[in-house]
Amino acid sequence: MKIVMLGAGNLATNLAMALKKKGHEIVQVYSRTRESAKKLARQTVSEDITRLTRVVHDADLYILSVKDDALEEVLEDFPVKDGFLIHTAGSVPMDVAKDHVTHYGVLYPLQTFSKERTVDFRQIPLCLEANSDEKYQVLKTLAGALSEDVRHITSRQRLYLHVAAVFACNFSNYMMANAEELLERQDISFDILAPLIRETIEKALQDSPSQSQTGPARRGDRQTIDRHLNLLAHSGKLQNLYSFVSNAITNDYTTPQNSGK
Amino acid sequence: MKIVMLGAGNLATNLAMALKKKGHEIVQVYSRTRESAKKLARQTVSEDITRLTRVVHDADLYILSVKDDALEEVLEDFPVKDGFLIHTAGSVPMDVAKDHVTHYGVLYPLQTFSKERTVDFRQIPLCLEANSDEKYQVLKTLAGALSEDVRHITSRQRLYLHVAAVFACNFSNYMMANAEELLERQDISFDILAPLIRETIEKALQDSPSQSQTGPARRGDRQTIDRHLNLLAHSGKLQNLYSFVSNAITNDYTTPQNSGK
Repeated sequence: MKIVMLGAGNLATNLAMALKKKGHEIVQVYSRTRESAKKLARQTVSEDITRLTRVVHDADLYILSVKDDALEEVLEDFPVKDGFLIHTAGSVPMDVAKDHVTHYGVLYPLQTFSKERTVDFRQIPLCLEANSDEKYQVLKTLAGALSEDVRHITSRQRLYLHVAAVFACNFSNYMMANAEELLERQDISFDILAPLIRETIEKALQDSPSQSQTGPARRGDRQTIDRHLNLLAHSGKLQNLYSFVSNAITNDYTTPQNSGK
Repeated sequence: MKIVMLGAGNLATNLAMALKKKGHEIVQVYSRTRESAKKLARQTVSEDITRLTRVVHDADLYILSVKDDALEEVLEDFPVKDGFLIHTAGSVPMDVAKDHVTHYGVLYPLQTFSKERTVDFRQIPLCLEANSDEKYQVLKTLAGALSEDVRHITSRQRLYLHVAAVFACNFSNYMMANAEELLERQDISFDILAPLIRETIEKALQDSPSQSQTGPARRGDRQTIDRHLNLLAHSGKLQNLYSFVSNAITNDYTTPQNSGK
């Protein structure tokens, strides 16, 4: 397929490189900043452009991968009204494109991309959506060559996915940050927890986190909880957090209608 | 070394097998229940006993690995007053043994053990403590043959470690359980989050969780937070949890004296 990349950030770069590797032709890279456009264009041996009026009209696919707040602006100026355009944003509904282009859809890779770490594209869940069966099939074929995990996910499901990721990733990470803060006070390096954290995660992914939940709050072990709260007396923040989350856990596992949840 | 195992649970079993593999001789396995004692004794080719009066007096080391609430009871009846006894509990101070035996210490493996999953002992942090330098060296040599990660951790530090593990593992797991609950409502399987969770964890372990914190609360992105809270309107629990943790994050990253934390 002949593909135009609209955007040249982390996600656009990872996606363009993966597509090129699979034999697709990246014909142009658009970015508002010349430098970004040039960089990805060089990597994909394509033309760099900084004005949307220069976008070619005969590409098979236009991939819009810019920051959420720049998305509508690019859509408004997108000149190929009868083209097939997909965006890659987690929390933007597919219909954002409906007044700007005939064929549209979404390819949302559920992963975080950074310049320092390379991730294996084959393992990334690709969430697809399109405004026609025909275009959905095109997208499915394209995505299936990139990843082993291709799924049909509606705009509404994608929104839920985004909130779920906040719980599972941002909030989990924050709990680890608090553990780190606590250990620092005792001059213990956070890395001591690495094997235990990895094992906890693998157990949760193997069974299910609700099944693999352990700890004093899960057991309703009030004595240990109180001992821990005493130890946290130096920090109102840690005490409140410990207390709030412990209560939520105990409540979840003792409320009859929710048992096992 | 000639070693007596006092206890035959998950941890005792894993530890005894690892020690035997390193050429140590397990001479006896004590457990209150005949069946448990027999099982581990068979695995380690040793004698099974169910009464503490039968414990041999010439072992080099006695490893006490029973449930926290049974620990003192075993200590009181332990007959080898001039022996070297260590316990393996996270939240029990070393001094629990001081009125019962001359030489004592702690070997606390910071890992969770289950029958279904085998863990690599070489990667497990072993936290050591002893009531004399001489015995500490004995313990250090023993532990160093089992794991690459041997550390001196005081009883007080071990307590903090235990609370930190509650944050980093139990609470993180709970955040994942809530993500799972949320996805279930949309008929999305939790495993879709697996690559993102693994990448989040590896980033946190590579840098530091406080450095790698991301998400709407970290950015102070009130608009997204409100959109998410709206989406969670069906569940007071999820809404409260989202709100509480988000506020804690925002507060941590905007309070001047805590910036970067």
